[in-house]
Amino acid sequence: MYNLLKGKKGIIFGALDEKSIAWITALKCHEEGAEIVLSNAPVAMRMGAINQLAEKINAPVIACDVSSADDVENLIVKTKEHFGGGFDFILHSIGMSLNVRKGKHYTEIDYVHNLKTFEISSMSLHRVLATCMKHDALNEWASVVALSYIAAQRVFPDYNEMADAKSLLESVARSFGYHYGVKKHVRINTVSQSPTRTTAGSGVKGFDGFISYAEKMSPLGNASAEDCANYCVTLFSDLTKMVTMQNLFHDGGFSNTGVTGAVIDQMEK
Amino acid sequence: MYNLLKGKKGIIFGALDEKSIAWITALKCHEEGAEIVLSNAPVAMRMGAINQLAEKINAPVIACDVSSADDVENLIVKTKEHFGGGFDFILHSIGMSLNVRKGKHYTEIDYVHNLKTFEISSMSLHRVLATCMKHDALNEWASVVALSYIAAQRVFPDYNEMADAKSLLESVARSFGYHYGVKKHVRINTVSQSPTRTTAGSGVKGFDGFISYAEKMSPLGNASAEDCANYCVTLFSDLTKMVTMQNLFHDGGFSNTGVTGAVIDQMEK
Amino acid sequence: MYNLLKGKKGIIFGALDEKSIAWITALKCHEEGAEIVLSNAPVAMRMGAINQLAEKINAPVIACDVSSADDVENLIVKTKEHFGGGFDFILHSIGMSLNVRKGKHYTEIDYVHNLKTFEISSMSLHRVLATCMKHDALNEWASVVALSYIAAQRVFPDYNEMADAKSLLESVARSFGYHYGVKKHVRINTVSQSPTRTTAGSGVKGFDGFISYAEKMSPLGNASAEDCANYCVTLFSDLTKMVTMQNLFHDGGFSNTGVTGAVIDQMEK
Amino acid sequence: MYNLLKGKKGIIFGALDEKSIAWITALKCHEEGAEIVLSNAPVAMRMGAINQLAEKINAPVIACDVSSADDVENLIVKTKEHFGGGFDFILHSIGMSLNVRKGKHYTEIDYVHNLKTFEISSMSLHRVLATCMKHDALNEWASVVALSYIAAQRVFPDYNEMADAKSLLESVARSFGYHYGVKKHVRINTVSQSPTRTTAGSGVKGFDGFISYAEKMSPLGNASAEDCANYCVTLFSDLTKMVTMQNLFHDGGFSNTGVTGAVIDQMEK
Repeated sequence: MYNLLKGKKGIIFGALDEKSIAWITALKCHEEGAEIVLSNAPVAMRMGAINQLAEKINAPVIACDVSSADDVENLIVKTKEHFGGGFDFILHSIGMSLNVRKGKHYTEIDYVHNLKTFEISSMSLHRVLATCMKHDALNEWASVVALSYIAAQRVFPDYNEMADAKSLLESVARSFGYHYGVKKHVRINTVSQSPTRTTAGSGVKGFDGFISYAEKMSPLGNASAEDCANYCVTLFSDLTKMVTMQNLFHDGGFSNTGVTGAVIDQMEK
Repeated sequence: MYNLLKGKKGIIFGALDEKSIAWITALKCHEEGAEIVLSNAPVAMRMGAINQLAEKINAPVIACDVSSADDVENLIVKTKEHFGGGFDFILHSIGMSLNVRKGKHYTEIDYVHNLKTFEISSMSLHRVLATCMKHDALNEWASVVALSYIAAQRVFPDYNEMADAKSLLESVARSFGYHYGVKKHVRINTVSQSPTRTTAGSGVKGFDGFISYAEKMSPLGNASAEDCANYCVTLFSDLTKMVTMQNLFHDGGFSNTGVTGAVIDQMEK
Repeated sequence: MYNLLKGKKGIIFGALDEKSIAWITALKCHEEGAEIVLSNAPVAMRMGAINQLAEKINAPVIACDVSSADDVENLIVKTKEHFGGGFDFILHSIGMSLNVRKGKHYTEIDYVHNLKTFEISSMSLHRVLATCMKHDALNEWASVVALSYIAAQRVFPDYNEMADAKSLLESVARSFGYHYGVKKHVRINTVSQSPTRTTAGSGVKGFDGFISYAEKMSPLGNASAEDCANYCVTLFSDLTKMVTMQNLFHDGGFSNTGVTGAVIDQMEK
Repeated sequence: MYNLLKGKKGIIFGALDEKSIAWITALKCHEEGAEIVLSNAPVAMRMGAINQLAEKINAPVIACDVSSADDVENLIVKTKEHFGGGFDFILHSIGMSLNVRKGKHYTEIDYVHNLKTFEISSMSLHRVLATCMKHDALNEWASVVALSYIAAQRVFPDYNEMADAKSLLESVARSFGYHYGVKKHVRINTVSQSPTRTTAGSGVKGFDGFISYAEKMSPLGNASAEDCANYCVTLFSDLTKMVTMQNLFHDGGFSNTGVTGAVIDQMEK
């Protein structure tokens, strides 16, 4: 549409199917002129849909278990080879919780699974960035976005240990944002997105009551996956170069709304 | 460059001279395809520079004392006439403090001047928005940005009562953002910008020590007026439609940096 | 009970009747060994109840229109005379909005009334502190608490312009907290209290739906006026000397709760 | 002094030697009438000093590796036996980072050590609380405090991965605070304390430059370990019952100070 990302190259993690924020962001980035490498967990890739996306946007797909040093190393090295040098952006849209999947209550989680959740959902951002730094893979003023959720700040009981994982993710973004900023002007932010009806999100217990509550509590309504993709495009562009180490709410105003007329009406029923 | 604002129309307040953030934002918006109405206080306009800008971007200039109901009414009505209907964005870059100008210490401010500061620097945003609402002057999904500063959250002693004015401004942006969002999907945000060497900013006591401290405390350095203009362009575009009621730090990482190596080095001297 | 405030002296603003947080705080401070001066607006005092309180705790009552320089001067001078020197704490529980009383919608407020709201509800804290500073009326490590509400951070539509007034109040607490802290170790905080069924609070439109929403959204339920009084006692004591320039949520967890099971249940009805 | 904790019983983790915040807090709690159980890591206990404290306040010492389910189980069961039932407060003052000890740069941390850091420094709070819940060990309105640091919000580069650990800790406090609050009115907060010259703190690289920077940046100066102990006493008392899920800055105003005259002076040298 605007050629906002003309000449830019990046990795997009986490495109599962056409409802995924990562999927739609990859499409938008492509439309805006970017070249892309897609990556996802081997298990997610076996579902196969990602290849349709890859074809559409002419992007290689590189499987990567983000908790494996070798896999991340391989991804970064191959991506540099593919692009013939460094690249300009990364979208981190990765989250996984065995405790949630198994229906464990937050107060009774399994700690081995919990650490795995942090490894996959949070420290993966660190690992990817550390590997990029080691290989000097990110260009000057590159932009990294990781998707987060407001459970990092406030409790949504059913969000379970993923709330802690998102807090940790946001902290990693800040910490690494400092170091990569000082070193190479790389900027790193998290986007705290409205609850979104993706295939991954749907797994969360009570997700429906929850998404309609968020809709009623947001002056503009919930932000869609497509809205989020558009916003990520601006963050990858050269127009937002001085925004870094921030957690950016992209939620139709939910985060700064205490209550709405619509919710009060419902409470009075 | 990108045609990001093609077909959009807006008012830009506060272009004093070519160092002004508002001035540069007007130029960028024009480059991106927008049509603009310029407005400034009668006293600022007497300095005359704004007419050079107006010529460059082919924009009418409408004088407006933002503390006058009649002036604001006149501005909104004339702007609608000029555009032949509603418009799509507003930049509020307005601040004035007689207590600062007169060198009053924060603990000894004059309260009559103080209320004038709030009227000009903060409630002017309310007055402009209320007048727009009354005349249904803003189009669906219009975007309003007001420039703020981190003194709204943390104390910078020399910033004086302007800190309180900026807190108030950010609150007005949230409050009005709710109502205009519910009513017409208008989104309203503040951009909390790095200290910037503008003609207005230079008036603040100790500004130089301060701007170099901010530079040393920001992993990416201070954001320039031009960077800020670019960022405002993204916020006026259709790509950020679901961002509202936020205070967005545009500061090279200053806001989330506790200390830097550069500052510690200086402290140890 | 504990003698936590033995030997301490302070001014308590805003005790209207026995439901007032200020009233109950005065009782608690007295129980904890403090000597007190009561102050309220002349108009509020005409209702007369404050004299019952004054008798109970053996405190003088000094009328004070907090927007009047003379009245505040008189209050501080008389209080010093009464105590035979400086004093140790202040409770600021003051708020008034003509726009709310007159049922004006936030988007249509009267600006003359609005500035009066800020003068009474927010800048009164500045005026009281500036007058104390001028007369060196506060002892080393004195403690000042002003009551606030979370509408300063998030929009509760019916709270109207008082949201902006509370944001401004919190900013004044920070700004003055810096200067009085550096000068004399005086600490200044705001307590952001649950909605409380006081005579003043009841005036707000939609207050009932609102208080029951807050109750359902707070893991511990809403904090009562008595709870708030207890909390203020700790903040006036020597045990919290290093807490300053903070906004302290005293709300049963409301502020960091995104949603509760109780609210979701209600939404699904 | 005040008998603020008369009749209360609690566990205090992390008293290493007489400089420890936990050590001093144990003394203060004892003075205020509480009965205490002390706990520390087996390795820390071998240093032996804790027994002096135990004698002084007549408290049993129970060794506990907080990453071991068995150890935590044993601690909670034994504590209940010792007290003859439930107890009323917990102080969590626990942190450990092998990556910091080994001098690893944040961008090159070892991930196995990193997960251990989270297990010990952050998830230990979860484990202790989950075990308490399982054994119904905490009384109604019990109060839990975990010590944190502002690196959870802003980057202090030398604080390294402990910043992420503290973010995670604060998130756990919120999340568990919700569930234990709803279930049994247990309140859980973190205290974000000034940098403190303890034996543990001294291990951090650049700690001296850092502590003097914090001193200069805090209007009241840095809060001492004794100040912190006093503050914890108020949080364990019945006077703060409605404060929960908060991160409470106890730092002489550091957190809300953007810059001070003292720092600007130093920057201009």
